[in-house]
Amino acid sequence: MLNNQRSLDLMFQALADPTRRAIVDRLSRGAASVSDLAKPLPMSLPAVVQHLQVLEQSGLVTTAKVGRVRTCTIDSGALSLAEQWINDRRLTWERRFDRLGAFLNAEEEAEKGE
Amino acid sequence: MLNNQRSLDLMFQALADPTRRAIVDRLSRGAASVSDLAKPLPMSLPAVVQHLQVLEQSGLVTTAKVGRVRTCTIDSGALSLAEQWINDRRLTWERRFDRLGAFLNAEEEAEKGE
Repeated sequence: MLNNQRSLDLMFQALADPTRRAIVDRLSRGAASVSDLAKPLPMSLPAVVQHLQVLEQSGLVTTAKVGRVRTCTIDSGALSLAEQWINDRRLTWERRFDRLGAFLNAEEEAEKGE
Repeated sequence: MLNNQRSLDLMFQALADPTRRAIVDRLSRGAASVSDLAKPLPMSLPAVVQHLQVLEQSGLVTTAKVGRVRTCTIDSGALSLAEQWINDRRLTWERRFDRLGAFLNAEEEAEKGE
């Protein structure tokens, strides 16, 4: 397994491109074949395949070939990992902010009481 | 203002690097000066400044110079935007999965009833 830092590097890197986000967005609504994914995209099939490889290497998308069709599926566990990383930092910051707010309110009340 | 796609490109790109994530992590625990941020990092000050510029361009971090000290602060609104993008796709996928589960359960019950 890739270590956690390397996983996060690859996942955020994969999400840093509008075409790859469009693919993730499409796959969030259900599994799709490579050619279905390529249809609405303004680029060649090999270009789409290249984007899919970046998504697959990051773990955000898994693909499986049945017969001649390669089907792509989103990995919500991997998405959750990237989301959680951001969420943890945001909450740490916001809790700190809340404590600061509570402190300032208490100070104000104390001043009124004096 | 940057359009939304471009913002997401820059934010995910900014998060795709372990040093920049370490900076965001540190800043989630409170504002810090550039030299405080640089202290624990195994690189030169100019290298840290370069990472900070990437974070600033993405909107995840804001900096302000007071006298000779530049203080860096996290922007939790920007963090929230990146988090929300992932969260929306994950929930779309999981709701779809839940509906599929409910459908299969109903099918099973119907079969038992026959």
